[in-house]
Amino acid sequence: MAKKPADSLVIMTELVLPNDTNVFGNLMGGRLMYWMDIAAALAAQKHSNAPVVTASVDNLSFMNSIKLGNAVHIEARVTRAFNTSMEVYLNVWGEDLVAQNKYQSNTAYYTFVALDEAGKPKAAADLKPETEEDMELFNGALRRRQVRLILGGKMKPGDAKELKALFEKG
Amino acid sequence: MAKKPADSLVIMTELVLPNDTNVFGNLMGGRLMYWMDIAAALAAQKHSNAPVVTASVDNLSFMNSIKLGNAVHIEARVTRAFNTSMEVYLNVWGEDLVAQNKYQSNTAYYTFVALDEAGKPKAAADLKPETEEDMELFNGALRRRQVRLILGGKMKPGDAKELKALFEKG
Amino acid sequence: MAKKPADSLVIMTELVLPNDTNVFGNLMGGRLMYWMDIAAALAAQKHSNAPVVTASVDNLSFMNSIKLGNAVHIEARVTRAFNTSMEVYLNVWGEDLVAQNKYQSNTAYYTFVALDEAGKPKAAADLKPETEEDMELFNGALRRRQVRLILGGKMKPGDAKELKALFEKG
Amino acid sequence: MAKKPADSLVIMTELVLPNDTNVFGNLMGGRLMYWMDIAAALAAQKHSNAPVVTASVDNLSFMNSIKLGNAVHIEARVTRAFNTSMEVYLNVWGEDLVAQNKYQSNTAYYTFVALDEAGKPKAAADLKPETEEDMELFNGALRRRQVRLILGGKMKPGDAKELKALFEKG
Amino acid sequence: MAKKPADSLVIMTELVLPNDTNVFGNLMGGRLMYWMDIAAALAAQKHSNAPVVTASVDNLSFMNSIKLGNAVHIEARVTRAFNTSMEVYLNVWGEDLVAQNKYQSNTAYYTFVALDEAGKPKAAADLKPETEEDMELFNGALRRRQVRLILGGKMKPGDAKELKALFEKG
Amino acid sequence: MAKKPADSLVIMTELVLPNDTNVFGNLMGGRLMYWMDIAAALAAQKHSNAPVVTASVDNLSFMNSIKLGNAVHIEARVTRAFNTSMEVYLNVWGEDLVAQNKYQSNTAYYTFVALDEAGKPKAAADLKPETEEDMELFNGALRRRQVRLILGGKMKPGDAKELKALFEKG
Repeated sequence: MAKKPADSLVIMTELVLPNDTNVFGNLMGGRLMYWMDIAAALAAQKHSNAPVVTASVDNLSFMNSIKLGNAVHIEARVTRAFNTSMEVYLNVWGEDLVAQNKYQSNTAYYTFVALDEAGKPKAAADLKPETEEDMELFNGALRRRQVRLILGGKMKPGDAKELKALFEKG
Repeated sequence: MAKKPADSLVIMTELVLPNDTNVFGNLMGGRLMYWMDIAAALAAQKHSNAPVVTASVDNLSFMNSIKLGNAVHIEARVTRAFNTSMEVYLNVWGEDLVAQNKYQSNTAYYTFVALDEAGKPKAAADLKPETEEDMELFNGALRRRQVRLILGGKMKPGDAKELKALFEKG
Repeated sequence: MAKKPADSLVIMTELVLPNDTNVFGNLMGGRLMYWMDIAAALAAQKHSNAPVVTASVDNLSFMNSIKLGNAVHIEARVTRAFNTSMEVYLNVWGEDLVAQNKYQSNTAYYTFVALDEAGKPKAAADLKPETEEDMELFNGALRRRQVRLILGGKMKPGDAKELKALFEKG
Repeated sequence: MAKKPADSLVIMTELVLPNDTNVFGNLMGGRLMYWMDIAAALAAQKHSNAPVVTASVDNLSFMNSIKLGNAVHIEARVTRAFNTSMEVYLNVWGEDLVAQNKYQSNTAYYTFVALDEAGKPKAAADLKPETEEDMELFNGALRRRQVRLILGGKMKPGDAKELKALFEKG
Repeated sequence: MAKKPADSLVIMTELVLPNDTNVFGNLMGGRLMYWMDIAAALAAQKHSNAPVVTASVDNLSFMNSIKLGNAVHIEARVTRAFNTSMEVYLNVWGEDLVAQNKYQSNTAYYTFVALDEAGKPKAAADLKPETEEDMELFNGALRRRQVRLILGGKMKPGDAKELKALFEKG
Repeated sequence: MAKKPADSLVIMTELVLPNDTNVFGNLMGGRLMYWMDIAAALAAQKHSNAPVVTASVDNLSFMNSIKLGNAVHIEARVTRAFNTSMEVYLNVWGEDLVAQNKYQSNTAYYTFVALDEAGKPKAAADLKPETEEDMELFNGALRRRQVRLILGGKMKPGDAKELKALFEKG
């Protein structure tokens, strides 16, 4: 039975505390990736109704520093299921609640594998996109998967048709 | 004055404790990325002798789960400096000290920006590769940077000559 | 300028990890109150656009245990502002993502005081209820405030008209 | 076999560290409630010689902020046992060890339920008050229990005789 | 003005949580030494009314493992002040609250240096022993100080008269 | 089959974060002893290929404070095995990566006992020293063991021949 992206939506809000920051009082990247991993894992669990393990994280870049005492907002939802793996899209931003200022931190894609009780990979439900944004994320998931397979040495660049087209158009 | 990759080498060993694990007793990906961020930031600081902030993390995939009670080994060193940013290469593996078994977890590339006292980006020393592996990492850093620029929307795929060649050869 | 309850809504999702649990693998009450305090403080900050300190917590009772590996959902929003203090309503439930089971943990009221830059109490914006539930929470806030004042020794039970009526009706 | 309140006394001292504080360097209320929950749970375990779970926390208000680097003192002891539940009284104060200044933070009542090995509620030993203060806490426990039952929707205000009298006297 | 050992007494109670334990469910020695350091530092601060830093820890051995879910009891008090340094005696035991069993973990001596506002060593008040046990600890402090000085290379074994006598008597 | 000290070498690097520090921004001694315990336990596990518990820690003194934001370097290796116990030597120093300054913190000896699956002490492999420094540590281990036995009340000072000679030479 297919599920919708909205079914797996997880909203997480965290407060940046002293131990999360570097000497400039900015949230450390690793601490943020830790929270993102938990939010994304919960989204993948909501979709698959199974325990999950992190399989990969796509290239991510941090745009603005999130400051000590600010809030961190993370929204995560599944974009597509590929047999036993699922891609989760994350949107992350900071908020200075006093200055009333919201700012983008990053967007990211984490993939997870659902496991059965014996800890073996298990098929996850299909995902059926609803909105236009859902559809765009669903379609892009195929291209991002090719990148992962190439980078993981499991596919030759020349076989990744979608990606190849991208470079030829340039 | 140029520095060598070995000058920035950081070796970190951690023990997987209960709170680092999921319900299967396996180290959570986010916790590992947190440790990797700290190891890589220390390597970038050793190279630049300045505080640093995480700019980006390249696609990384987790090969084997690291178990509760096992050791995590992280080695990080700078591969190349690009004006104010530095790329750090990480090699991560687990070790079951009782069974005497070492297993690969992942390899990764984190980039950092060095900051001056006012928190503004600051030029880092050049990196001069020494060994054959150093040289390979140094050369690959240019291609990986093109991927980051394209994914960050700061370069058109068609302008990334090295990458384009990769797909045409395929 | 008055704000609406929805303006201060904070949604927090947490994963119950081993160190959050007692010997039965259930989330400890104190750990949950810690998360609730942060979610509620963020809601109060969104309303007042100022740093806040926890002033009080109303009687709360825990209905169902939240299990290790389950998700904790906390929703917090301001119900009413009284000059420098604000009441925040929290709704907390657990979710077993595998069994697809949601269960109530508790509802609670925390109050906060907004502070200016010198750390002195500062007036918060008025709150203007919108929905029927908003209105009910807004009206009940007065009665709950009387309870706090009586319990804090700042009001005589006989002067708390609303409360007195409650006992006389029985 | 009845026990005395002194038999369950737990004394806890903690140091306020950076991660326990808000942007003003004051201990966050939630962190304090976490420590109080552990101290009170230990007192309830000492009385019942069984694992316990937090059932409820009575209205509590924070009088003075406890500062970074100061000590937190928590004293907890059982005031009365009601079949499977126990009420624990907590007295909490801060201490600036350099300025030699002690200040009240709050007093509180937590209730716990003792569990047997199957995780089911289990009768706790009776409590026999000794000192005058013990007796006062023991007697008040009945009235506080009525408040909890009313607030939990398990008793009608008009049936709470002791409480009703309180409002009529005013 | 001299102070008594009892003036500096600190009583700390902690609960052993999953992350404090090794794979056998026993409290790790390092975690216990962390708690002991905080308890002892608070005792030294109570005596000196100044911030302190840990100068040394004497040989300590762990007698019985403290189990997950058990309570840890630490009592710390100053035994003697030597100009800017103070020796703190710690007594540490575990308690299984369900089985009603208390067991010794270790006794230890930590030394601290009091600091003034500029972070420079500062004279601490004298300590005046009261009870017989106080006196014994006070006298032994001199011999233990010789051991520290010898081990730190600041005194020749032959100059430590008290210690030398100990070996000659044997 | 004997092992070499180099076989058990563990290198740990940590970053000093806010919660690890006292009010002067210096690493607390207890936090450092916690990290040292984990590094040393991993070295003992590498040598014995068995889980281990901390048996004792020799007198250690802290020479220089390690500052917030600095790196902590810990090197640990087994110096000698005595049937079921092993002595681990640790060398600990701080590093200010910006000022390019390394400074000694302390050297220490921790001892561990290897356990079998039932949690009972288990013989560890012999250690065969290789380098001159290995040999020196190996020989000194006997003398240090006598100190531990005397301090633990398991040997009379007069029976510790090596130690006695030390005092007579003085």
